[in-house]
Amino acid sequence: MKENKIPYKIYLEEKEMPTAWYNMRADMKNKPAPLLNPGTMQPMSAQELSGVFCEELVRQELDDTTAYFEIPEEIRSFYKMYRPAPLVRAYCLEEKLDTPAKIYYKFEGNNTSGSHKLNSAIAQAYYAKKQGLKGVTTETGAGQWGTALSMACSYFDLDCKVYMVKVSYEQKPFRREVMRTYGASVTPSPSTETEVGKKILAQFPGTTGSLGCAISEAVEAATTREGYRYVLGSVLNQVLLHQSIIGLETKAALDKYGIKPDIIIGCAGGGSNLGGLIAPFMGEKLRGEADYRIIAVEPASCPSLTRGTYAYDFCDTGMVCPLAKMYTLGSGFIPAPNHAGGLRYHGMSSTLSELYHQGLMEATSVKQTDVFKAAESFARVEGILPAPESSHAIKVAIDEALKCKETGEEKTIVFGLTGTGYFDMVAYEKFHDGKMTDYIPSDEDIRATTSKLPKVE
Amino acid sequence: MKENKIPYKIYLEEKEMPTAWYNMRADMKNKPAPLLNPGTMQPMSAQELSGVFCEELVRQELDDTTAYFEIPEEIRSFYKMYRPAPLVRAYCLEEKLDTPAKIYYKFEGNNTSGSHKLNSAIAQAYYAKKQGLKGVTTETGAGQWGTALSMACSYFDLDCKVYMVKVSYEQKPFRREVMRTYGASVTPSPSTETEVGKKILAQFPGTTGSLGCAISEAVEAATTREGYRYVLGSVLNQVLLHQSIIGLETKAALDKYGIKPDIIIGCAGGGSNLGGLIAPFMGEKLRGEADYRIIAVEPASCPSLTRGTYAYDFCDTGMVCPLAKMYTLGSGFIPAPNHAGGLRYHGMSSTLSELYHQGLMEATSVKQTDVFKAAESFARVEGILPAPESSHAIKVAIDEALKCKETGEEKTIVFGLTGTGYFDMVAYEKFHDGKMTDYIPSDEDIRATTSKLPKVE
Repeated sequence: MKENKIPYKIYLEEKEMPTAWYNMRADMKNKPAPLLNPGTMQPMSAQELSGVFCEELVRQELDDTTAYFEIPEEIRSFYKMYRPAPLVRAYCLEEKLDTPAKIYYKFEGNNTSGSHKLNSAIAQAYYAKKQGLKGVTTETGAGQWGTALSMACSYFDLDCKVYMVKVSYEQKPFRREVMRTYGASVTPSPSTETEVGKKILAQFPGTTGSLGCAISEAVEAATTREGYRYVLGSVLNQVLLHQSIIGLETKAALDKYGIKPDIIIGCAGGGSNLGGLIAPFMGEKLRGEADYRIIAVEPASCPSLTRGTYAYDFCDTGMVCPLAKMYTLGSGFIPAPNHAGGLRYHGMSSTLSELYHQGLMEATSVKQTDVFKAAESFARVEGILPAPESSHAIKVAIDEALKCKETGEEKTIVFGLTGTGYFDMVAYEKFHDGKMTDYIPSDEDIRATTSKLPKVE
Repeated sequence: MKENKIPYKIYLEEKEMPTAWYNMRADMKNKPAPLLNPGTMQPMSAQELSGVFCEELVRQELDDTTAYFEIPEEIRSFYKMYRPAPLVRAYCLEEKLDTPAKIYYKFEGNNTSGSHKLNSAIAQAYYAKKQGLKGVTTETGAGQWGTALSMACSYFDLDCKVYMVKVSYEQKPFRREVMRTYGASVTPSPSTETEVGKKILAQFPGTTGSLGCAISEAVEAATTREGYRYVLGSVLNQVLLHQSIIGLETKAALDKYGIKPDIIIGCAGGGSNLGGLIAPFMGEKLRGEADYRIIAVEPASCPSLTRGTYAYDFCDTGMVCPLAKMYTLGSGFIPAPNHAGGLRYHGMSSTLSELYHQGLMEATSVKQTDVFKAAESFARVEGILPAPESSHAIKVAIDEALKCKETGEEKTIVFGLTGTGYFDMVAYEKFHDGKMTDYIPSDEDIRATTSKLPKVE
């Protein structure tokens, strides 16, 4: 065991917890492009958005100049139930890799939702409650976001309606039961509860559903009921804002011990974790105060940053939601069925897309079997059983630490460990049994969907 | 929200973590009765025990005079990966109950094994490694202990062989996969790998197994292989010793804020959690330095303390293991199949049995539907999804807090939240669907097995 001045886990005290979220966009010279109305192809106004989202969240969504948003006291109280999240020094992993690198990870899995998603869920539920709404609707695939939202709504006594992709509803009954424990109503999608659901069922009677379809049902349910709004767990600016708590805590913990990271690594699907983790570091970079290597890691099977097109695209498969300018594989892109876990969104947060476009961060993609191999190695020495999503970051952190071993450099690597894999054991089983396969879409596969990007003047 | 001087979570710093385990027996005037050899009915000698258990663990098992055992540095390093565990002030639960009581819980679920079991698993694996053994064997029912042991063995690069009750192996594939992730070999029991397994299979070809049978297989596997020993997750004195880390941390955290508990509540199956949680408090009580109400909570379907007989009995159903003097329902007692989760052992740790016999602690039993009701209420306000086992303590903590509401007393209640319920969603589902039932054995049911207790002179 190495000499051990830095503790295994750095916990901030409650009084050291951040009291405001940080909005990266305020420090960006080139702002992310605005959302467009799919009907008019004009920027969405606050009024248009407020039919779908809570008013305060619309304000947060559109504000690209205010750097800090105070975290309301009620949200801070909730945060205290599971935050501050520990920043862990991976002493055992370092020893196993025999690397001079110093590895840290911010662990966001110590709450029942099993991931960082709760950070934004509680904020969105709070603003819905404050606006006097009865409830919120959302969609969920694997169930992480749905679970987080159920917990948040339960806390504020809000009705929570989750449309869960039918195949997940049937194959992941445990996630569904966790949501029910928190009082959410969970409907397999497509359902006969919405017009769009009925239409899809009539057209494809045997369908097992898709995220795109569930989004469409959730949006319809929110906009056709009195007192409801729709909420989303990633991609949006408001979500990245709330998730900045991850990065702010990470930075505070590092600062406490005078540690300056060299490399910051996060997995990236829609961008909620990565955008949150890197926020204050990117802020320093944008203001010219410091420099860091920042690496987004995406699955080789859904490589929006590394192989997508930077263009306006629909945020949903059903093409009813606003358009966002982002790195995208096309809204019709669906990762191969052998892809386990999340990180299956066809696009990437507009803010992160713009930062990547400006060369302020790197991106890389990794194969799923390599990811699970890294996950298992990590679990065996660090104890925590990581979520498949989080393990993308583990894989690249290990790779970077092994490079340090070759060069002898004592780099400090920080990565985001977004969650735990307790509900992903089917994928682990496939991996153990040697039945897990990789899938890398061909250039043609990607052209098939990116060639259909909407034309925006 | 109440005024909040005590933080939501009290975390000790690493340097404040206990460096020695505390052995309650040292302060007991009437010591727990010794284990007996099932052949000779004489106290088991160290030599006899060392065929089954590691030498250092035998020493710990038999030593009832040494108060403190130093925790080896290697174990303390491992503890630092997931400890100190937080002592949480249940502000939200207090508010919901509108009680003047102050409720705290020690949360042991923030590790991949999902429970406190890891505290002893790592110690037992360490001593096995130190003795130069190749590996250890054990049995597991629901899988909590097997998971903990797998993690511990993976850390010390020890072979880990788990006999998992066949019905659990088939119905709880996720627990099995977690164990495989940590490199354990998991065999459904009964198996053809052991003589006892073959014998049982020949006699009952369609059997789905039982804990008693799995124990017998694990013991046979340990004693017939070179370089292996058997390990156990509860009941034994050595396990209570290791688990004292729970109580020592709890006490240190309370002392830090000058808090003196009035009531300490823990769930009790074999006694590993309860014995660990209460250890230092019971020590003060035994030495006449302080007084506390200490309450053991057991399931109404397996009520060893509240309805069992205090006598010598076999520790296993197969009657091959040593006999212990304990409160027991008879080694042939098996809780009804509708009983969900753990806490299904027919007896209770000898140490706890003796303390209970001396009137130093209370015991109560609760019905399973009431337990799940308490679990759900707790989850909705405190966020954490509790294990069914832990929820027994929650139920009684809530009851005591509601009594305070009636009397206006500001009592301080501390309970042990031993783990999370992520792998117990089948039981939660039954509860949500109104399909969960209760079972309370009749006096006749209990007489049927206690009447067969072995005769010991």
